[in-house]
Amino acid sequence: MGRKKAVVLVSGGLDSATVLAIARQQDYELHAISFDYGQRHRFELDAAEAVCRANHVFEHVVFRLDTSIFRGSALTSDIAVPHNRTDEEIAGGIPVTYVPARNTIFLSIGLGYAESIGSADLFIGVNAIDYSGYPDCRPEFVRAFEDMANLATKAGVEGQRFQVHTPLISMTKADIIRKGLTLGVDYGLTHSCYDPSPDGASCGECDSCRLRLKGFEDAGAKDTARYVTGRS
Amino acid sequence: MGRKKAVVLVSGGLDSATVLAIARQQDYELHAISFDYGQRHRFELDAAEAVCRANHVFEHVVFRLDTSIFRGSALTSDIAVPHNRTDEEIAGGIPVTYVPARNTIFLSIGLGYAESIGSADLFIGVNAIDYSGYPDCRPEFVRAFEDMANLATKAGVEGQRFQVHTPLISMTKADIIRKGLTLGVDYGLTHSCYDPSPDGASCGECDSCRLRLKGFEDAGAKDTARYVTGRS
Repeated sequence: MGRKKAVVLVSGGLDSATVLAIARQQDYELHAISFDYGQRHRFELDAAEAVCRANHVFEHVVFRLDTSIFRGSALTSDIAVPHNRTDEEIAGGIPVTYVPARNTIFLSIGLGYAESIGSADLFIGVNAIDYSGYPDCRPEFVRAFEDMANLATKAGVEGQRFQVHTPLISMTKADIIRKGLTLGVDYGLTHSCYDPSPDGASCGECDSCRLRLKGFEDAGAKDTARYVTGRS
Repeated sequence: MGRKKAVVLVSGGLDSATVLAIARQQDYELHAISFDYGQRHRFELDAAEAVCRANHVFEHVVFRLDTSIFRGSALTSDIAVPHNRTDEEIAGGIPVTYVPARNTIFLSIGLGYAESIGSADLFIGVNAIDYSGYPDCRPEFVRAFEDMANLATKAGVEGQRFQVHTPLISMTKADIIRKGLTLGVDYGLTHSCYDPSPDGASCGECDSCRLRLKGFEDAGAKDTARYVTGRS
């Protein structure tokens, strides 16, 4: 019998790169999936590919998702990404970068992929501490998804327990970075910025950059990603 | 305030055509969604369009879904569709026409679409009586999806209760047909066959045709769909 297979959702960001390294450490055969959902830039997907290569994944699939029907998110339309919001503003509700039902859709497709290759283990880098108001990053959402998945699938019916692994869920950004560094994650390969410059440098000012920079500061580590304003 | 919006999953089959008529009778503004998931033939999507037109939907979107990563279903690969199975064989387990996590994926995308247009009502024609062994047609699956959806979305967080309507769930095929006929559904527009002839006539012998033909027989009604073998 071969190694157990894991499906890992890899966005190209800091969190999913850490999750991939954690799944690798647990000796799974790694099947990575990334989503091309009309992001305004390609740097995320390029980063996902680099991260997968660095982790010697067995397979990396990029799933194209036509999200033109989802209106009103700054990540998929021309609504402006906010810069330099205060911590109170970040904590104050669901941001414009929310994409309707995004993690539900990603996990559902990951579930189908997992079932089709005979895997019962799906890894996702959601995080409830720094989740910035996204409802589909909360532990209660993940448990509800898992319960649903075990009723939805042939594997579930036949007695295989499908699990959604969220190793980062209760970690701070600094914890995640410390964990990743012990596993040898090269964070210079990852991309977190919502609003990069045309050559792919991070803005340092969007919510995602600010959480990331604060995480490195708290971890006492240096962020090797490229920033436009000479940060890091 | 305008009418309440409903998102209705429309496959082009008999069940979803009936569901669309039921939602129409309940005076929703109808937003139909169909999925192009690499079905082996286009007749289903053509039927979906005809059914939507006949019901004067407000909007009909066809969502393209790259399911090449889902291996091993007879509906999306070259595995043969079984013909003339006995009732015991049909009842005996999950068939080869099962697509991994299909309804989970369809409902998740429907959820995203619903949230993006401000709808909290999603209609799907799943049926637990004639469900032919698909785990994702069971009432417990639908309830679990609904629970998950209310944790997943901004609408759920903000107190709007998202509902998955399954008006057919405990009806027999004959009940469904009788209901549809009272609502004026033109079943000649619908397509149920898994394995049609090149000109779109139904085979009359796959599980889906057999359930449909038995439904019309039990309802004492005539099926106006076209069959290759002079059936109906």
